[in-house]
Amino acid sequence: MNIAILLYDRFTALDAVGPYEMLGRLPGAEVVFAATRPGPVRTDLGSLALTADVPLDEVTAADLLLVPGGPGTAGLLADEEVLGWIRRIDATTAWTTSVCSGSLLLGAAGLLKGRRATSHWICLDQLRLFGAVPVPERAVFDGKYATAAGVSAGIDLALDLAGRIAGETVAQQIQLVNEYDPRPPYTAGSLSTAPAGLADTLRANDLVVTAD
Amino acid sequence: MNIAILLYDRFTALDAVGPYEMLGRLPGAEVVFAATRPGPVRTDLGSLALTADVPLDEVTAADLLLVPGGPGTAGLLADEEVLGWIRRIDATTAWTTSVCSGSLLLGAAGLLKGRRATSHWICLDQLRLFGAVPVPERAVFDGKYATAAGVSAGIDLALDLAGRIAGETVAQQIQLVNEYDPRPPYTAGSLSTAPAGLADTLRANDLVVTAD
Repeated sequence: MNIAILLYDRFTALDAVGPYEMLGRLPGAEVVFAATRPGPVRTDLGSLALTADVPLDEVTAADLLLVPGGPGTAGLLADEEVLGWIRRIDATTAWTTSVCSGSLLLGAAGLLKGRRATSHWICLDQLRLFGAVPVPERAVFDGKYATAAGVSAGIDLALDLAGRIAGETVAQQIQLVNEYDPRPPYTAGSLSTAPAGLADTLRANDLVVTAD
Repeated sequence: MNIAILLYDRFTALDAVGPYEMLGRLPGAEVVFAATRPGPVRTDLGSLALTADVPLDEVTAADLLLVPGGPGTAGLLADEEVLGWIRRIDATTAWTTSVCSGSLLLGAAGLLKGRRATSHWICLDQLRLFGAVPVPERAVFDGKYATAAGVSAGIDLALDLAGRIAGETVAQQIQLVNEYDPRPPYTAGSLSTAPAGLADTLRANDLVVTAD
């Protein structure tokens, strides 16, 4: 199982690392982190870099492609080097997947036309720009295309994928290794559960968290 | 708010990145990833490296210290360079925290004597070796010491910490930015919910996931 994870400047760390922690534990998984230029790639918060071990042109096929999201996607929506690579890898995959605004890159690559897909709540409607059908769910499957909602949703998507790829028992082992029995101390993780006005505050501040 | 996150060879990526994604979004947060030697630090699965931007001796204080876990902890339980650094930073913190087997490093540094603490289920009892009181809960607070259970539990702990540090509204903003409304597709994330025998299988295989 060859897994390719795209990195790019100002991606969101957990978008990539949540699914990595799940899918990287599949028996036989071989994961490669790839970017336009190999070396450290900075996340959106600036204080962390993940290493891209290989340049995009050295990855020519994958069983599973994962495209994380983050503010850096905006600058790549017309980047033919990245979009062309996504299209070429997609032609070889069993699964093409994204987390958060990574689905906008799949859309910009032309892969989601007429397909149901999801994204971070702040940019879900932008999927329409690429002919996709936005679905406000945490994980959306349409054929081999699997898209997750914002950031942490990639963990749920990846565990679902693990079960589809390797069966329920393997997925449950992965869940128990990661002790994934979530107990959020607050109930504010979705538009439908968050206190009124919270999303508007975040929209007004480009998702930057502010003290009152 | 200065946050120091320790990296070391064969740490578990999500142990560090889950809390980073939450705490790094606190207003005014300044996060630094530190290791014995700066540069790329490989995770337990080998296919990912996170960058340590500074060596340990350049970090002399922090408001919050986070020690992730992973198989690499075993080799550090008598490493005076790392344990001494943890003790020195702890002397300056408002919060000293760990995820997964990171609590064994806090214990080995002598910080958990007589304190309630948790860890990954596979090594929870080892906390007794350091005079700590093992508590099989997802997040355990004892004074300024906050420990999380395995891997993904660091997300819940960090969101709890975010609320204690900056208030409920900030924590809820962070939760909504990360769309943290978990929906695991399986129910196997804890010893009490996993199918019978699953933990024994993982114990027999040193937590390496195997196909049947």
